[in-house]
Amino acid sequence: MKYMVGDVAGGTAVFALNGENAVNLSALSDKVGPDLMGLIADPSLVDSLAADIAAAPSVATKDITPALPVAKPGTIICLGLNYVDHIKEGGYDIPEYPALFMRGKNSIMAAGKPMVRPTVSEKLDYEVELMVIVGKGGRHIAEADALNHVFAYTVLNDGSVRDYQRKTHQWTPGKNFDNTGAVGPIAVTPDELPEGAVGLKIESRVGDEILQSANTDDMMWSVAKTISLISVYTTLEPGDLIAMGTPPGVGHAKTPPRWLRPGETVEAEVEGIGICASPIVDEKDFAAAVAAQ
Amino acid sequence: MKYMVGDVAGGTAVFALNGENAVNLSALSDKVGPDLMGLIADPSLVDSLAADIAAAPSVATKDITPALPVAKPGTIICLGLNYVDHIKEGGYDIPEYPALFMRGKNSIMAAGKPMVRPTVSEKLDYEVELMVIVGKGGRHIAEADALNHVFAYTVLNDGSVRDYQRKTHQWTPGKNFDNTGAVGPIAVTPDELPEGAVGLKIESRVGDEILQSANTDDMMWSVAKTISLISVYTTLEPGDLIAMGTPPGVGHAKTPPRWLRPGETVEAEVEGIGICASPIVDEKDFAAAVAAQ
Repeated sequence: MKYMVGDVAGGTAVFALNGENAVNLSALSDKVGPDLMGLIADPSLVDSLAADIAAAPSVATKDITPALPVAKPGTIICLGLNYVDHIKEGGYDIPEYPALFMRGKNSIMAAGKPMVRPTVSEKLDYEVELMVIVGKGGRHIAEADALNHVFAYTVLNDGSVRDYQRKTHQWTPGKNFDNTGAVGPIAVTPDELPEGAVGLKIESRVGDEILQSANTDDMMWSVAKTISLISVYTTLEPGDLIAMGTPPGVGHAKTPPRWLRPGETVEAEVEGIGICASPIVDEKDFAAAVAAQ
Repeated sequence: MKYMVGDVAGGTAVFALNGENAVNLSALSDKVGPDLMGLIADPSLVDSLAADIAAAPSVATKDITPALPVAKPGTIICLGLNYVDHIKEGGYDIPEYPALFMRGKNSIMAAGKPMVRPTVSEKLDYEVELMVIVGKGGRHIAEADALNHVFAYTVLNDGSVRDYQRKTHQWTPGKNFDNTGAVGPIAVTPDELPEGAVGLKIESRVGDEILQSANTDDMMWSVAKTISLISVYTTLEPGDLIAMGTPPGVGHAKTPPRWLRPGETVEAEVEGIGICASPIVDEKDFAAAVAAQ
């Protein structure tokens, strides 16, 4: 299945997508709820609604204003460098463990919402990533069993304020500016993708300018291995988000650096999942930009 | 005021402490709720209950089993190196920005609960820290106004699994093992402490063995400066937790290293706030240890 959480009068709802058409699942059953947490808790819910879905009126997918797939993710864990080509081009040895950091919930927003270039920096950078939405939680998850803990895959643009990321060895501040990490809009269940979401083209663009273009085959740590590694130290919970790292081509590595500029719209796309588009807005213009949407 | 959140039949409650005696505030008003979030939302609530508190029966503070001051903190932000003596002894230059990282909610537990030495490592280390419980939220908080955003101070033992902390430059895994960060048990409002919680002895111990002993005067980044710096990049919210870094004397810096061992109880104390004691338990014995409490 493909799902999108979107705005509706008085809140948000989960839509099941069928190409250009979408059915509001939340309107069919109270158990679905306002975001994906209801389906994560009971994935069979969608099957039990099959007859209702077939009979329900549909809306145009393009008319839905995306909201976050999980409104309040408990934990957002991100991998650093995970694409072999990016490690090779930098002359680095293959590390034996992934660089892991966390984003807080105020740092993320839905696809389509403004990505904010903060007043304190012009060094706002893009990072297209495959993102895992955790289904079943657990600790000490074996790699062989790990993919059973994936509810769905979505897209992250892990917007990064590079000078704040490099102020110290800890990347947290540069990865946690409010409204810099765009998530969604579409969540695709694993049965609709290759196992482990490998073999998918992954790309970021501004207009015709291709910024990053790679394939999820190049990920050094697979989704299964990553889930297993993280669960060595923490209990993963339903709705947690795991970002799988970005391929080469980020702005700070280009000559000259290619920072995101207000007025541009950056698109992050993973093949078979969808496009996460974010208009870049200066912090001082953020409130007006939200009001205008 | 001094508050402690503690277990009661069917849940938790907020107690107001008066030395050895404690009054259950949650039993006096539904507005108080099961943790500090009710008082954070309306700090004047305790004043409006003054007459009820005076008339209420009290229990012995020592008989309360502590629970987390905030059951589900939205964000837990931690400073790395913040004590001048520790920087000097290491020969480091004074950094111009604090090393910031995050802990997830599964990594923390209440004072008195087992601190878990994981199966994968014997390198479990202690770090006594002053911890801020954010009251009023905000972004771009001026340093001069920042202390108005402190609801209370408490104690953190920022338990760290050192080999996992150093697997890469990002400290996240070693700072996020389940049940390694002990918080509480007592939350003290700012009016009962020196401004900015400076001038307080800060110490960690196992029995008679003093592990760390310093004074919060030695903090390089004050509470006010830290709140202001963090709010440059993120909106702080009520109930967020900020850990203010640890003084010298941590186990991995001793010769030979002094790791925490199962059977020991480590105490983290900040003068005027309280003692956060944690029995060390091997991961394999954790379930039995919780059941026995």
